[in-house]
Amino acid sequence: MNRKEFRDLASPDEAREAIDSLSLEGGIERVPLEDARGRVLVARLDAELDVPGFDRASLDGYALRARDTFGADEADPARLEVVGEVHAGAKPEVALESGQAAEISTGAVMPDGADAMVPVERTDTDGDEVLVRTSVAPGDNVMFAGADVAAGERALGPGTTITPRDIGLLSALGIDEVPVRAKPRVGIVSTGDELVRPGEELHSERGEIYDVNSYTIAAGVEDAGGEAVLYPHAGDEQDEMEEILRSAAEECDLVLSSGSTSASAVDVIYRVIEEQGELLLHGVSIKPGKPMLIGRLDHSAYVGLPGYPVSAMMVFRTFVAPAIREAAGIPEPESATVSGRLARQERYEEGRHRLMPVGLVTDGAGETLVYPVDKGSGATTSLTHADGVVEVGPETDYLEKGEPVTVTLFSPEVRPPTLFGVGEGDPTVARLLDGLENPRYLSVGTRPGLRRLREGVPDVAVAAGPLERETETAELGQWDREWGLVVRAGNPTEIEGLEDLVDRDLRFVNRTTDSGLRSSLDAAIASLAENGGADRHEIVDSIDGFDLGLRAHESPARKVIAGDADAGLGLRETADRLDLGFVSLGQQPVRVLANPDRTAKDGVRELEAALSDVSSSDQ
Amino acid sequence: MNRKEFRDLASPDEAREAIDSLSLEGGIERVPLEDARGRVLVARLDAELDVPGFDRASLDGYALRARDTFGADEADPARLEVVGEVHAGAKPEVALESGQAAEISTGAVMPDGADAMVPVERTDTDGDEVLVRTSVAPGDNVMFAGADVAAGERALGPGTTITPRDIGLLSALGIDEVPVRAKPRVGIVSTGDELVRPGEELHSERGEIYDVNSYTIAAGVEDAGGEAVLYPHAGDEQDEMEEILRSAAEECDLVLSSGSTSASAVDVIYRVIEEQGELLLHGVSIKPGKPMLIGRLDHSAYVGLPGYPVSAMMVFRTFVAPAIREAAGIPEPESATVSGRLARQERYEEGRHRLMPVGLVTDGAGETLVYPVDKGSGATTSLTHADGVVEVGPETDYLEKGEPVTVTLFSPEVRPPTLFGVGEGDPTVARLLDGLENPRYLSVGTRPGLRRLREGVPDVAVAAGPLERETETAELGQWDREWGLVVRAGNPTEIEGLEDLVDRDLRFVNRTTDSGLRSSLDAAIASLAENGGADRHEIVDSIDGFDLGLRAHESPARKVIAGDADAGLGLRETADRLDLGFVSLGQQPVRVLANPDRTAKDGVRELEAALSDVSSSDQ
Repeated sequence: MNRKEFRDLASPDEAREAIDSLSLEGGIERVPLEDARGRVLVARLDAELDVPGFDRASLDGYALRARDTFGADEADPARLEVVGEVHAGAKPEVALESGQAAEISTGAVMPDGADAMVPVERTDTDGDEVLVRTSVAPGDNVMFAGADVAAGERALGPGTTITPRDIGLLSALGIDEVPVRAKPRVGIVSTGDELVRPGEELHSERGEIYDVNSYTIAAGVEDAGGEAVLYPHAGDEQDEMEEILRSAAEECDLVLSSGSTSASAVDVIYRVIEEQGELLLHGVSIKPGKPMLIGRLDHSAYVGLPGYPVSAMMVFRTFVAPAIREAAGIPEPESATVSGRLARQERYEEGRHRLMPVGLVTDGAGETLVYPVDKGSGATTSLTHADGVVEVGPETDYLEKGEPVTVTLFSPEVRPPTLFGVGEGDPTVARLLDGLENPRYLSVGTRPGLRRLREGVPDVAVAAGPLERETETAELGQWDREWGLVVRAGNPTEIEGLEDLVDRDLRFVNRTTDSGLRSSLDAAIASLAENGGADRHEIVDSIDGFDLGLRAHESPARKVIAGDADAGLGLRETADRLDLGFVSLGQQPVRVLANPDRTAKDGVRELEAALSDVSSSDQ
Repeated sequence: MNRKEFRDLASPDEAREAIDSLSLEGGIERVPLEDARGRVLVARLDAELDVPGFDRASLDGYALRARDTFGADEADPARLEVVGEVHAGAKPEVALESGQAAEISTGAVMPDGADAMVPVERTDTDGDEVLVRTSVAPGDNVMFAGADVAAGERALGPGTTITPRDIGLLSALGIDEVPVRAKPRVGIVSTGDELVRPGEELHSERGEIYDVNSYTIAAGVEDAGGEAVLYPHAGDEQDEMEEILRSAAEECDLVLSSGSTSASAVDVIYRVIEEQGELLLHGVSIKPGKPMLIGRLDHSAYVGLPGYPVSAMMVFRTFVAPAIREAAGIPEPESATVSGRLARQERYEEGRHRLMPVGLVTDGAGETLVYPVDKGSGATTSLTHADGVVEVGPETDYLEKGEPVTVTLFSPEVRPPTLFGVGEGDPTVARLLDGLENPRYLSVGTRPGLRRLREGVPDVAVAAGPLERETETAELGQWDREWGLVVRAGNPTEIEGLEDLVDRDLRFVNRTTDSGLRSSLDAAIASLAENGGADRHEIVDSIDGFDLGLRAHESPARKVIAGDADAGLGLRETADRLDLGFVSLGQQPVRVLANPDRTAKDGVRELEAALSDVSSSDQ
């Protein structure tokens, strides 16, 4: 086996076949009735008893012989001797003869000799006698033994997914434990020296990242009806990794490894498969997800998922989750689909089957627009910012803007956002969004936000700072925010303004030119240059760190906290929240601008209403 | 408060308002990431760090300065000095100057001085140098710090129901615990001396029944996103019941009691509510479900459900489950509805809003027929034999056959049966059904089965014994079964045939006239009378127990096991399975007859195919 060779990529169908040829089933287990909901019955359950187990009074009243009431009515009641009473949960201590009745409660056993009962509302008592003011037929108001379920009857068939209603039937039959399909045990092995478990300390400077795949895949496994078993992280130490793989294969029905980026991990997987397994397939002609392995490890099935989160999840969803559901006996969920039109042209380079994460937005005419979410396979937000997937066959090189496409939602519960916004990252915007129904907002910065608004995809854009170019938009609202330099708490370096950055030996952290903060900074520098008669370039060159812009809203402030910088471009609100010092450089306007075609859309109106409070309270 | 007064019944809307006025919310809890799937976030989560936390190589290859590759191509590569290597999870120990490159693995930290990277496939090595056969731009193949999520960005909004994709984002942010809405704790108190927990021994002779409501309601509570707490059974002892109610109210957000049939339970509930709570509503104008209580017990909400399983579940589904979902922050599920036509006329006596459990069957033309499932409120099978509910307003007295109705399925996962059969209970039929996709079969006996088939609702009927009346049907298959007398193991009373029942003092257990077994028995007695020149009535009168027919398939055999009878009417197969003795009285045919309009229906064809095996192997 040559692990570098992916020349003969398998087709998606071949990958499905390879997975189907493996057995993922977990066998049978017995679970108590309390835990049976949603589990899949493996065998038919027949009734072992009659339900009810006795002829049962359906109401409160009198048990009697129907024949004794024939002809009785309001005016001419039948008069019967009351010879006893029967309560629910008690054995009748009376047997009726002709002309007799017994008081009886709902649910009680009909006494011998009685063949019907009359509800108390249709009777009157007179000493030891009861006057029955209606005639009843044999069997009236009696639930006969076995009338609900009869002994020997087929109660539930094999393959039944147990609902609360079925639990009712099982309870009635006295069954307190049921044989169900065991959930397939799915071992999750993640490898790589760079991975750190969430909650532990992260050393970004040595390239550590939090382990995304283990938890995401585990949640996907449980969604599909499997039981996820997380194995401890293996670093890139081969012996350790081998031991973990082998014990996972022994303990599980399926082992999923998520691709380490290191060659040594792949080497170990290949060696273990070679020694005690079989490799059925390596490499699938799909994007994302090409580097996928399918095989057997000992008696366990094995799938090697790609390392990038989006690739791993796409491969999991497409190939692995259906196999887990099949093994768990859970029917494929109704896949919810949505039709729409592509919001922009998409080009494809390679002849691979493509699974494209997409977002949905409703345009002004109520039509659904579909836009690719293109943050890349390495970005977890490629999935959280998307609503579903569009599949594109390998023969397609590009899709035109406006092309009709069908989106398979990630799950039938996915609700496309009520509002789609883009633009500047801002704390007020974040708070506004919290009050809206189901918004999506991408903090791409002011400039890219305005560009996207012009391109017609989002509903609104948030722009901070001076507007450079006139865009045809509807302004929904605006407020001012205070911007400046975020410095260490107490401002120990005694920075008073921009001049200090120019004149003194201070380390500054800037934002990228996408940001509205940067536009205001650039304007301030231009005016500093003008007022001082200096050259703008000279000023900029003398600020240490001016050219290194960070993309992230709070990142400059965080560099200050980490001691990597003396001052960072930011907001007073950020400085206050992070307990840092702040040197104000002014106010800048933040505008919420809507696509003029979308102002009547519910989500946009909801935002506009929320904005009216902000604008009035902030001004 | 007068508990017998239900004259002023509240409307369903008033009941909804009363429940909405109670607070069921369980507050906030923090759950580990592994348990966060499906839970509802209570607060916005902002990113506390950049993801990735560093500029990251997207591929295996060489980090370099883009400027050094300008103009390079296949024919004229750029030649750079390789001055080190950087692995994922390690801090770079090299900084690049012009003309230099560093080997770098996917996911590794870009070294200082590098602003782009080139994939290994576009390079060749030559000693300590690398030949770069393409030109790259600054930023190429690099994922910048914060490009996935930037520190300070709004990651997930309040109210988000956490999906596996969200778990990916949370993992990437290193969040190992999230604040979610606590599941509302719902205490379930069931009362009544007659109730026995499943798994325990049942004494039918004193009217004991298994507790159906506790487990069914608990499953419903969990389905709705609550946490069910089952309290120990309270009998009808008032002090005990009061103590259980009070501790449930203290420990839970909502207490559900399911109506005891005894007056003392109701008395206790009224007293406790009077002493430390408030009764908002008693009695709702709905059927089933009228005797419903809504109120407060101390700081807990309280709903008293009716005692009959169908009534309890209907009231729970209609009024309580939505309130639990609301408190749990779970959106109302898309209610799946199906349109169809009523299969038979339905009459209503009272002016109450009605929730009618119905089954669905597809007719020969592919239309959906809707038939009421009318086993009564006391029967658990009224729900398991149904697919959903039709609501009928209080102003409606009857619905015509053929009337269009809308059925709300019990859940979107409900799949209407592929085949609907009725008729004789029979072990071969039960086995046949096990092999079919999603059948429904009601063991109503041969005669009622044939009657229903004539009425046009079911697809097929199973008839055993001599056919009394010609019905226009399509016979799908038939086989013979051996019937006779089921006796104690080893036949200790040495019964040889029917004559023994007539001549000797033996206790016999018969089946009702609905059963095909009974038809064969009646025919055998008729021929016994004819052959012996005796009167049929005389014979029948001299058999002890002949007139007492049981409705249930195996019940006579079980009476023999219990020692209540010497012989019971039954099948050889039943006797064999229960290790009893058997005296054969002959073979009887079992016919599977289809509605002639439905023979092309998939489910019917599937049954026909399965039958061809039975017929050939059994003949």
